[in-house]
Amino acid sequence: MTNPVLIEVLRGAIVESAHRGAVAVFDADGKPVLEIGDTSKPVFPRSAVKAIQALPLVESGAADAYGFGNRELALACASHSGEPAHVELARSMLARAGLDGSALECGAHWPSNHDAEISLARAGGTPNALHNNCSGKHSGFLCTCVHTGIAHSGYVRADHALQEMVRDAMQAVTGAAHGADQRATDGCSIPTYAVPLRSFALGFARMVTTTGFGPERAKAAKRLLGACMAEPFFVAGTGRADVALMEAAPGRIFAKGGAEGVHCSAIPELGLGIAIKCDDGAGRAGEAMAATVLARLLRADEALAGKLVGLANAPIESRVGAKVGAVRPTAALN
Amino acid sequence: MTNPVLIEVLRGAIVESAHRGAVAVFDADGKPVLEIGDTSKPVFPRSAVKAIQALPLVESGAADAYGFGNRELALACASHSGEPAHVELARSMLARAGLDGSALECGAHWPSNHDAEISLARAGGTPNALHNNCSGKHSGFLCTCVHTGIAHSGYVRADHALQEMVRDAMQAVTGAAHGADQRATDGCSIPTYAVPLRSFALGFARMVTTTGFGPERAKAAKRLLGACMAEPFFVAGTGRADVALMEAAPGRIFAKGGAEGVHCSAIPELGLGIAIKCDDGAGRAGEAMAATVLARLLRADEALAGKLVGLANAPIESRVGAKVGAVRPTAALN
Repeated sequence: MTNPVLIEVLRGAIVESAHRGAVAVFDADGKPVLEIGDTSKPVFPRSAVKAIQALPLVESGAADAYGFGNRELALACASHSGEPAHVELARSMLARAGLDGSALECGAHWPSNHDAEISLARAGGTPNALHNNCSGKHSGFLCTCVHTGIAHSGYVRADHALQEMVRDAMQAVTGAAHGADQRATDGCSIPTYAVPLRSFALGFARMVTTTGFGPERAKAAKRLLGACMAEPFFVAGTGRADVALMEAAPGRIFAKGGAEGVHCSAIPELGLGIAIKCDDGAGRAGEAMAATVLARLLRADEALAGKLVGLANAPIESRVGAKVGAVRPTAALN
Repeated sequence: MTNPVLIEVLRGAIVESAHRGAVAVFDADGKPVLEIGDTSKPVFPRSAVKAIQALPLVESGAADAYGFGNRELALACASHSGEPAHVELARSMLARAGLDGSALECGAHWPSNHDAEISLARAGGTPNALHNNCSGKHSGFLCTCVHTGIAHSGYVRADHALQEMVRDAMQAVTGAAHGADQRATDGCSIPTYAVPLRSFALGFARMVTTTGFGPERAKAAKRLLGACMAEPFFVAGTGRADVALMEAAPGRIFAKGGAEGVHCSAIPELGLGIAIKCDDGAGRAGEAMAATVLARLLRADEALAGKLVGLANAPIESRVGAKVGAVRPTAALN
């Protein structure tokens, strides 16, 4: 099936570009609350499932052993912007396990936050693996290895004990088999598995309600989503969509985007999980789809829904800051 | 109609994202040689038509008066990367008309070339309008104003005499009416008009053959496309797709991308113009579509076609440089 156009990008009054996609909203019992487009198609979740991938960090006792609070746990679930506070916190997480940035196998890139990038250059610096947007997740992986006595070298490989723990958590929470034939490699070198989009909606409904979880997993899920909602900046960074979504209603929305137009979120008070994939991989569209769906599900709170609709309808500006266009959700999404 | 998927983005062996689009290839008599998808839908050409927008610079005599050679003319048709050679050339073009960067109304942004951006930051610099990727085009506009005695202030406005000259050239070359209801504002503040995609294919077939042009326009079109093909670096910059396309066959391919997944090109030996729009606005897809279509049209030259196919099938790498995926044109495009 061809997924519908969910987001249009206008220049003046004319639609310049259009984004198709699929949306799955499920409750924790597996009941679909909203499905748009093909929600059974396998999708690589990329960074949108970092909170599930962080379960072993808490369940293993590593988070407690190293004294991790909300900020550290949020960073373990983050695609951060490489701002100084992110980089320092990743460094301190590793230090508590007796490691430094050289243990990270995610690769280096310049901070995605432009001001942080320019500051680093002005200071004569170059980026290292701590600046990688995934360094918090990788620091969590490394801390789990050290605490549980697993040799950490090669922790990004699919056959490493750490990635087996992560895969087990992913399978248990999403209910979808993660086989080798669904596997590819993420930008930060860890495995990513393409499973039906709806599995992630169900998975986040379970994460936010802890339905069907044992007591340890239930506690870990609550701590991780709670940490992200308490410290949104450490999940993303200055000016980022996920920060705006979570700050729009503190404690009432969990939101995490991934590369290639994937977005996962959850609404504790409704017990719902949401998974979105923009077909063409555009982040601008995945984020606008997420804001629109969250507004639709939370429409009983008019003020909040209005804020979320505002985030979905972002202006497009010229280089002198004039508004020359806008992002607009379509009727198929509203 | 729904345009077909023309480009797939693979992660491992699985399609992660997909890009739809339309392709128009026309000869200068208006005969369609290849049409895929809806080529009648209005599209903003954005920067892909800068070579047509530069006709008044040459036709007015300004280019000769200021002694512009291939590099200056290429830069007038460019979306450059803000590398030092681009910035210095734009400055020198303005200086020949007695102006400096303060006359530019395009706005400032950091160089799109990452090395140039970091070097500028390391040197303690900040970007100005000369770094804007459109500064060559705008310098050409300003030189045209000064040479023809038009007050240059406000030259970006649709009702300014300079923009009327540009619009007249666009209408004459593409054969499409450019009315106020089709108008919006480009990122660099000048007007852009949404007209049927096929108009740009016809326009570039005319530009490359000069069919139906008077002698002055014919000479100007030849000089501008010739300048771009002679100096591809000044049309784009280090590592850019249009440079690779034009360097694959010096003098045999003209190529110019624009924002939001638009791409225009021309093949002198075949007398063809090509216009492409990726529906979702992705540059990576517009460029891969262009390379594939050029390979298809030039398949009689197997070595060249092979090079172009290689450009279309770009690898996707992890942050440690491992190949983890690839861009792949679909059967609908080949």
